[in-house]
Amino acid sequence: MGNENDKKWFEKKISRRDFLKKAGIAGAGVAIGASGASGILAKMINGTSGQLVGNEEISFYGEHQSGISTPVQKNVYFAVLDLRSLELEEIKQMFKDWTDYTEKLMSGELVAPELKNHLLPPIDTGETVGLNPYRLTVTFGISPAFLDKLKLDNKKLPEFKDLPHFPRDQIKDKYKGGDICIQACADDAQVAFHAVRNLVRKGRSLIDLKWTQSGFLPIGNGKETPRNLFGFKDGTENPKNENDFKNVVWYDKNNWLKNGTYLIVRRIQMHLETWDRTNLQEQENTFGRYKESGAPFGEKDEFATIDIEKKGSDGKPVIPIDSHVYLAKKAGTKICRRAFSYSNGIDEISGQFDAGLLFLCFQKDPEQFIKIQNSLGNEDKLNEYITHVGTGIFACFGGVKKGEYIGQKLFE
Amino acid sequence: MGNENDKKWFEKKISRRDFLKKAGIAGAGVAIGASGASGILAKMINGTSGQLVGNEEISFYGEHQSGISTPVQKNVYFAVLDLRSLELEEIKQMFKDWTDYTEKLMSGELVAPELKNHLLPPIDTGETVGLNPYRLTVTFGISPAFLDKLKLDNKKLPEFKDLPHFPRDQIKDKYKGGDICIQACADDAQVAFHAVRNLVRKGRSLIDLKWTQSGFLPIGNGKETPRNLFGFKDGTENPKNENDFKNVVWYDKNNWLKNGTYLIVRRIQMHLETWDRTNLQEQENTFGRYKESGAPFGEKDEFATIDIEKKGSDGKPVIPIDSHVYLAKKAGTKICRRAFSYSNGIDEISGQFDAGLLFLCFQKDPEQFIKIQNSLGNEDKLNEYITHVGTGIFACFGGVKKGEYIGQKLFE
Repeated sequence: MGNENDKKWFEKKISRRDFLKKAGIAGAGVAIGASGASGILAKMINGTSGQLVGNEEISFYGEHQSGISTPVQKNVYFAVLDLRSLELEEIKQMFKDWTDYTEKLMSGELVAPELKNHLLPPIDTGETVGLNPYRLTVTFGISPAFLDKLKLDNKKLPEFKDLPHFPRDQIKDKYKGGDICIQACADDAQVAFHAVRNLVRKGRSLIDLKWTQSGFLPIGNGKETPRNLFGFKDGTENPKNENDFKNVVWYDKNNWLKNGTYLIVRRIQMHLETWDRTNLQEQENTFGRYKESGAPFGEKDEFATIDIEKKGSDGKPVIPIDSHVYLAKKAGTKICRRAFSYSNGIDEISGQFDAGLLFLCFQKDPEQFIKIQNSLGNEDKLNEYITHVGTGIFACFGGVKKGEYIGQKLFE
Repeated sequence: MGNENDKKWFEKKISRRDFLKKAGIAGAGVAIGASGASGILAKMINGTSGQLVGNEEISFYGEHQSGISTPVQKNVYFAVLDLRSLELEEIKQMFKDWTDYTEKLMSGELVAPELKNHLLPPIDTGETVGLNPYRLTVTFGISPAFLDKLKLDNKKLPEFKDLPHFPRDQIKDKYKGGDICIQACADDAQVAFHAVRNLVRKGRSLIDLKWTQSGFLPIGNGKETPRNLFGFKDGTENPKNENDFKNVVWYDKNNWLKNGTYLIVRRIQMHLETWDRTNLQEQENTFGRYKESGAPFGEKDEFATIDIEKKGSDGKPVIPIDSHVYLAKKAGTKICRRAFSYSNGIDEISGQFDAGLLFLCFQKDPEQFIKIQNSLGNEDKLNEYITHVGTGIFACFGGVKKGEYIGQKLFE
């Protein structure tokens, strides 16, 4: 069916943007790279996000996949998929189809024009008709199991293996493993969901849904780092410029993963009610930061350099040695965090909010995350208030040029 | 503790907005009623929503509670609570505290200034520091069980009772009943969640969480009715002007519910994958509307009057007699829908998306909804694609004037 649709594409391209134009909506689909791009990119370099405007389009093509160093959005829909088919050619075709779909989705078009044949199901599910792209980004990754299942033994990379068990992990089977991940981010929840839904639908005979999680971020004016559900700023220490991304994030060895990166996901339940009963001093000691400003202890500015060696007049470390910031910094390595909050109703056992952090981070080597997480290990005071219940590691391909498809360097 | 905090309030009012000013953010907290108000109100009267701008504040005080006829927002966090305390005076005090909190929340302030005493837990959980009010509205309601449990027998109203079982209902115990509802809507998911979290926290010794659901809406440019996850426009037939609201929504008998309304909630699971395999003709026949335009069959405009008597040249009804629109219209009554989509990960039994509609509607008499739902009953074609799994009815008090508290007319 995919090929038939492709033909229709080129015969008569009724795009969502055309529909927007018909509806008289001006200014839809201003691609980043044209007007306004420099501002957005500057904000990206700050590691924080741009003001929510909703009508920009982020370019699908580039050296790297989008959704990693591009500015963070208000919403994520993250999906982990299992392979149902083990036929390499079928999976390759699915990634080709996904490439076609993703380019359209990110530019605010329908994945296919509305069928004129009313006796067929519409190809696009249609819930985004009339909407802008809302800075949609779609990021694809594959797990070590993906390579195993498709017998791509010669593509294995020594550092690419399942994450170890970390101290205090309470991983649930339903939030673990999987073969493929899709991270869809946008400034509109329905746009993000629509992307994953239509991609999954396209590959439905070849894949199963393993787990998914939606999340949100309070972007505000884009000048401040968003706060997590503990009320603290999250992600301050992120890469700040292209050089940081080069050093921290982009995989640079000369193989199929070049210009890609490793995505690590952790579903972290946050025990909000316990936290809320904790006094402010203890909350701040737990992070090693002031709650209001986000500055590390002993500093005034959120982005001040963290000096874990600094001693107070009493000779004691200014930043407590069991604080989150101290232990993360002590690991001596960096990652790029791109985490979202989630709230999923009530936890049926505790009767409390089922809420927390969909922690997503990117790094050129999984060891960066592993070092940090091991340093946090049993010592991090934050462990009293959180539980890691989901985990995953995925290799995210490099970006694609026009005419290429996602994952091509792996498959060919 | 509440009273101590109240004293501090008046001693030193460090509001979230002051904090915003400190952060140099101009234009925060522009109350609707001042600049921009007329545009927003006009959009409200259209029954559709305003462009997302994020920095307006909706007035807490008024003849009616907000979140009913005020423009719909991008996000909802809906909570149903059970009474733990059956002491009327305690519950009354909780509603007084909630009044104080809600006024602050809706104007973009913290529920209490940050404590200077680091040895106490912060009163506000803090995750909205630095954010605008994002058009937050908070709407409170109580169930028939609330009146029973608090022995308010003389306040009972003949039409105010639990909803009947409807054909095809598959209500789950966990999504049924409850004593109090709080509907928090905002253009930012974290702002909506923060409101409910802090209200629940304030009353934590008196109430339990029964169920909660977050939801989202693609507001777009505010000119079109948002689409549901079946890709169809939802809510076209809503009240369009003040007179409609008077006729359809506002309770007008001279008792404690005056200027209030009845809220009905239904958690409706939508079987997306079944729907997506259905051809376009069948999808449109199911709703009785065209998918792209949203117009009823035989019309061009979404807002065209629906004439279910209209016959085609073949003598058959233009709008199929088993379609959603036909049967809803046939009931001969109206309601005000204010529904949101939801997506909650994967349904563990089917392995498909757990997604659907958090259907919320308002009417002056529950019978309006009951008539429509009974008309849809077994006949509605849409029933093949949806399952009602949650239900609730709540009487939402009228609005409050300065100096009054929410629910005062019930309690005094």
